[in-house]
Parts: sequence; C-alpha cells; structure tokens
Amino acid sequence: MSTDDLNLVPITDPHDERVADYVRLRDVSLRRSLEVEQGLFIAEGEKVIRRALAARFRPRSFLLAPRWIDSLADQLAAHPEVPVYVVSEALAEEVTGFHVHRGALASMVRHTRWQQADLMGMQRLVVCEDIVDHANVGAILRSAAGMGWDGCLLAPRAADPLYRRAIKVSMGAVFSLPWARVESWAQVVPQLHEAGFLTLALALDERSRPLPDVAASLADDQRVAILLGTEGEGLSRRWIEQADQVVRIPMGHGIDSLNVAAASAVACYALGPSGRPSAEG
Amino acid sequence: MSTDDLNLVPITDPHDERVADYVRLRDVSLRRSLEVEQGLFIAEGEKVIRRALAARFRPRSFLLAPRWIDSLADQLAAHPEVPVYVVSEALAEEVTGFHVHRGALASMVRHTRWQQADLMGMQRLVVCEDIVDHANVGAILRSAAGMGWDGCLLAPRAADPLYRRAIKVSMGAVFSLPWARVESWAQVVPQLHEAGFLTLALALDERSRPLPDVAASLADDQRVAILLGTEGEGLSRRWIEQADQVVRIPMGHGIDSLNVAAASAVACYALGPSGRPSAEG
Repeated sequence: MSTDDLNLVPITDPHDERVADYVRLRDVSLRRSLEVEQGLFIAEGEKVIRRALAARFRPRSFLLAPRWIDSLADQLAAHPEVPVYVVSEALAEEVTGFHVHRGALASMVRHTRWQQADLMGMQRLVVCEDIVDHANVGAILRSAAGMGWDGCLLAPRAADPLYRRAIKVSMGAVFSLPWARVESWAQVVPQLHEAGFLTLALALDERSRPLPDVAASLADDQRVAILLGTEGEGLSRRWIEQADQVVRIPMGHGIDSLNVAAASAVACYALGPSGRPSAEG
Repeated sequence: MSTDDLNLVPITDPHDERVADYVRLRDVSLRRSLEVEQGLFIAEGEKVIRRALAARFRPRSFLLAPRWIDSLADQLAAHPEVPVYVVSEALAEEVTGFHVHRGALASMVRHTRWQQADLMGMQRLVVCEDIVDHANVGAILRSAAGMGWDGCLLAPRAADPLYRRAIKVSMGAVFSLPWARVESWAQVVPQLHEAGFLTLALALDERSRPLPDVAASLADDQRVAILLGTEGEGLSRRWIEQADQVVRIPMGHGIDSLNVAAASAVACYALGPSGRPSAEG
C-alpha cells in the first residue's frame, strides 16, 4: 500500500495543539479530567488499537513513529478522514511523558455503550465496588470476559475501564465485554436481587462459605453476580450484609488473601461455565 | 520503648557508602548484579520487613524515615547490632531513585534456602519456565502459597523471587513458600516424572484438555506439577512435548488467554486442595 493514500501529518513541535490529546499520559489526574472533558480515550499498541477499531470505536487521530505506519496502514487507509500524526520517538516521549514501547497510539471517541439496565437481564455479572487500581480493573475485565461472564458493573468510585492502562492490561476486553456504572451504590445489590440474581460477596466473614461448596450448590441456570471489593479494605459492610451469601477462597500457608485480580479469576472460573467439566470429560 | 536502645545512624549524604545497599532500586540491571554480588535483597514496607524477619532472614541494615521508627521499634530493638539508617524522605528518594511510599526499607542477607532436590518429595509444585516479569513471579508465588501448594521450581531464566518488586507483589509469600532454581531446563520435566509427578503443561495445543476435566480425573494422592510459560511465547515446545498432559482453561468472548498470574491462580485452585468441596459442603 502506498502511503500516499494516508492522511499523514508530520509533527515537530511537542506543544503543537493538534497532539494535545496525547499529553502527559502518566499524569492520572490530568488525564482523568482531560479525557472526560474532551470525550476521548487513548488506545496504546497495534493490537489494542486494532481491537478498539474492530469494536467500532471511532478514532479522532493516530500518533505514530514512522516505523509503525506500515503495520497499521490498512486501518489508517480505512479512516482517510482521520489525521495520522507522524512523530519521532523522542518527540512522542516529550509529548506523552514516557517512552512509548509499542510505538503507536490512537485517540478515540469515548462513548458510553451500556447502561446498568442493559446488564440486568444477563446471566453472570461481576460487580466491582471501589477498585481504584486501573490494572486491577483491566485484569478483572479480561478474566471475566475470558471465563465467559456476560458483563461487569462498576461502583461510582471504581477505576475507569477506558483509562489507557486498564485497556492495556485487559488486552482490549474492555471493548468487547459489556460494562456500566451502577446508578446507586446503596441500591445496586437489592436491584440485582429484584432482577433475579444470586449475589455472592467475596470476603472473609463469619458467615463465609468455601467457594467450591458454593460452586457445587449452584443450579446451571442460576443468575449470579459476584461482588468484589478493594484489595486493602475489601467490600463495604453494606454490600456484605446485603449479599445473599458470603464466599471465601480456602487459603493455606498463612496467606490471608489473593490479589483481587487473581481472586476474581478464580471466582469467575469456579462459578461460571469455564469451570464445568465438559461433556467429553 | 525509648529510641535510646536503638542503633540509630542519621545519614545526610546520599553518596554515603553506608547506604550503598539501597541505591537506584528501580534500575533492574544494576540491582541484579549488585544484589547477587553483595549477597543481599531489599524488603520494602513494614509488613514485608516483618515477614522477612519472621521467616528468619537476617537484616544487614534498615533505612527509615523518622516517622517509621516507632512502628518498627520492636524489630529494630530485637536486632541491636544492625544499623538503622535514619533519612529524610527526600534523601531516601535521592538514594533509591523513587518515592518510597511505605517509608521503610531493609537490606537483608540473601541466601538460598532450598535446592531442587528438597522440593522433589513434595505433593504439589508450580514450575515456572521463562517468566521474566518480577510482578508475575511474585503473584504466582502468592497464589501458589495461598492455594496450599507446596513449592515452586524456577527455570534458569525466570525472574528472581527475591527482587524487591517480586517480594512486594507476593506479599512476602517468597519467604514462606519453598522455591528453588531447577538444575537443568532440559531435564527437569523427566526428573519430575521419575519422582512420581504428573506433569501438566498449561498451554493451547491440539492435545490440550479442559482444566475442569483434568481436575475431575485427578486422584487425591496424585502428585502434580503445573508447568507455566511466559505470557508472550508460552511454554517451550520441549516442555509441552515432555509433559504428561496439556491443559487449557476454557475461554469465551474471543479472549484467547489470561494473564499468566491469573491463569496460575485458576490452575492452582482447580488442581489443588482449595478447589475441593469441604466435608460440610
């Protein structure tokens, strides 16, 4: 493919307004306000950019070092109206504030695809309370999607799944797995009950039952929502008290807990379709 | 407790030779050679330091901001021969090259506690091939310990469990769970067979069986070793071919794999004691 067909725009000044979408990508508080205000998010790396485009998110612009043009040329050509800012790796670092290993960035139009109501008819949901670490939210979405869960609800304080690092850790699962913010932290657990979900709080508690016992007692068609809290504090008392059951992963060696990403992977496996013996098995 | 009993040594010069153990903690290649040469490792944060001391690793020195002295005073007093370098937070940052959130560091004597032979009599082992990411190795050790596995073998190229970040992510599980380097990458799988282990390679492969089927077919007293490869390349052909069985975690939503830390947590759960329904269940 000739690069003549592409909308290539060389950039040489790090303060050029045209690359303002990409400034200081590691400055979490700046990015949070900038991305929401401007209605954008950043996809990093060829694979993640391809997944965002495949999921029909619309690009605002691309920012690439010259050697990445060829590998993305088909996608760039498919969006001839979208500018492709071509920068040296040094300038990319100056703009973004870090060394962009994977050489390619895209600024995409942020939009909300699902509301809580869209997820309330599903079979299996992961519900994140105040998980503020972007890598954890990304890992949870990846595991949930991988294990065949249907969607994820996020409490108001949980980290943004469309933040660059969450997207990257999720390997793009944030684009395919439906997720939504809950409307009310205090009401979501009762709302799940009304919708027919069995709610399972993952926590250490005097009434907690071992995960394998809970898994063995689930009917195949039982609608399930797993409630996950932050690593430090765990779930709030409110959610634990509202939940139908409290579940713990049995632990050994004096270890009291797993990382929340590992715990969610285990719970999604044990309580979902991935953990069932197959017909042949 | 009066601080008079403690061996407090104020440090005001970042180039002071006495704090040479703590320089540039984020410079992986520098730290690798320095720590092995000097026979030390770094424990970060009060909780991790306490766990290292509880596991009877010997401190060479402590490096603390003044506000952390009280919280560790019992441990500092228990080691009156060990210098406690007291530094401002600014100086700590100048020495270590980053902002030490948790305010306390200890330099500990590195020593090898177990050899491969010590682990070959155990019941359940995790075997890491070339997992070079310190956070992944730490997470795998934490999950393995938490799920009641007995030990971990590491191929020659796998990351160092006593590297600061691996220790931190493991929450100190690297101190309690036995681990050792394998003597021979090419021979370890046959050696595991000789020792009576069923070896299970976690990989996508034409002969891979779903994890729940494999879990259901295991006898209670079966000795098991799970083989884990890097996230990018996965296990080597050699280890996959040498393994008794190849196992995959069933996946949905077009996701092809989990992060290796999540995958190892799921495998340790499904194939170990944590995943068995309890007597009451």
